[in-house]
Amino acid sequence: MSHFYNQLEFPETKGDRPFVAMNMVSSIDGKITAGGAQRPGYPGSPFDRHTMNVLRTHFDAVLAGGNTLRQHPYYLGVPSEMENMRLEKGLDAQPLTVVLTRSGTIDPASPLFIKAPLPPILITSPEGARRMAPSLSAQACIEILPKATPRQILALLQQKYRVGRLLLEGGPQVNYQFIQARLLDELFLTLHPSLIGNRADLSLAMGDKVLDRAQAIELAAVNRYGHELFLRYRLIW
Amino acid sequence: MSHFYNQLEFPETKGDRPFVAMNMVSSIDGKITAGGAQRPGYPGSPFDRHTMNVLRTHFDAVLAGGNTLRQHPYYLGVPSEMENMRLEKGLDAQPLTVVLTRSGTIDPASPLFIKAPLPPILITSPEGARRMAPSLSAQACIEILPKATPRQILALLQQKYRVGRLLLEGGPQVNYQFIQARLLDELFLTLHPSLIGNRADLSLAMGDKVLDRAQAIELAAVNRYGHELFLRYRLIW
Repeated sequence: MSHFYNQLEFPETKGDRPFVAMNMVSSIDGKITAGGAQRPGYPGSPFDRHTMNVLRTHFDAVLAGGNTLRQHPYYLGVPSEMENMRLEKGLDAQPLTVVLTRSGTIDPASPLFIKAPLPPILITSPEGARRMAPSLSAQACIEILPKATPRQILALLQQKYRVGRLLLEGGPQVNYQFIQARLLDELFLTLHPSLIGNRADLSLAMGDKVLDRAQAIELAAVNRYGHELFLRYRLIW
Repeated sequence: MSHFYNQLEFPETKGDRPFVAMNMVSSIDGKITAGGAQRPGYPGSPFDRHTMNVLRTHFDAVLAGGNTLRQHPYYLGVPSEMENMRLEKGLDAQPLTVVLTRSGTIDPASPLFIKAPLPPILITSPEGARRMAPSLSAQACIEILPKATPRQILALLQQKYRVGRLLLEGGPQVNYQFIQARLLDELFLTLHPSLIGNRADLSLAMGDKVLDRAQAIELAAVNRYGHELFLRYRLIW
């Protein structure tokens, strides 16, 4: 099936760390949730979900925060019929799923672990590790990082797991931390034709300060499908 | 000077009310302020400010809330060199400026009133009118509406001021009220290539509930200038 993101060019390497991209869908007013949760098709269409999978075919690993995963507790992989797209690009059949959970509160019975093609990597803090269900170590690779900063996470993923390209899929705090650390190279944004308006709903990056301004944020691609827009931005720090 | 919004088609009439459009600029993550305020060029470029003026050439009146006006306290008109564009479209040389101020706290010494080409219309509540500086009545048309609902405002502007097309320019609460009342027909959004990330910053429509879903929100136009996107949406209720 043809898709404007089937073939994408990425820089070969970022040197001492993996290349980092982010993929998010938001409403026109910048909300990634509606009434506190991501509901199927709102914001975001079935074609957007397909696009999410196409993007995942380009990355060695997909990372999400614990909160995001609790809302959608599945392995961050591609449908089996898309594994070939990965193999043709020289990647493994499925990306690694990486979960950032400082609190360590991941349910060992989560669907995340059911038929997981590879053991998910759970990155946690020393306190999170103490709190973690012991049975998790049988189904996941548990990585304890003192502060679990974005830079530490990238170093771990590159050195131990040979991750060359990492895709972030939220939530807002995880996204914020990577941008704040100037460790985001590209942003894929789907702009869904909806207006949420609820002040309590989330936006794609949320923290306590205005983010440092990148040297440039370049609009690298604009695609539309129906009334939905698919934007690709390149960040230069 | 050529601009993709120089010529725009709008429906002739919405029957019992003016046609209503909104123009806003936001960051990629949906923020219309950076650190609590709109700063020149962030979010939004000089070309976006020019675009704001071009859009104003199409409307009989431009409405903003009191908070928005306090941040940028000027008459919501067009530069004198653009008056011809309005006259050629059969409009008055300048749009009416309409300020929605339930509280009535508008400074009589505000630059809004300096060289105002027409007396601004201040729409307020009975309480706001009691609180208003008496000298305001010499420089503005003060309109007291019991609840100042969007529908009341539109009826007043249509019947008394012959407004056929109204442009909303914020802030988030004013925008929310008009959308909630299903009284927004078009949305012009500039997507500025920036990421704000500060959870305290404002988004384009802010209220206490998820807005009703429009029957459709159609992406009517996509234009880009540099790395900035200029989107036009049509709302069908």
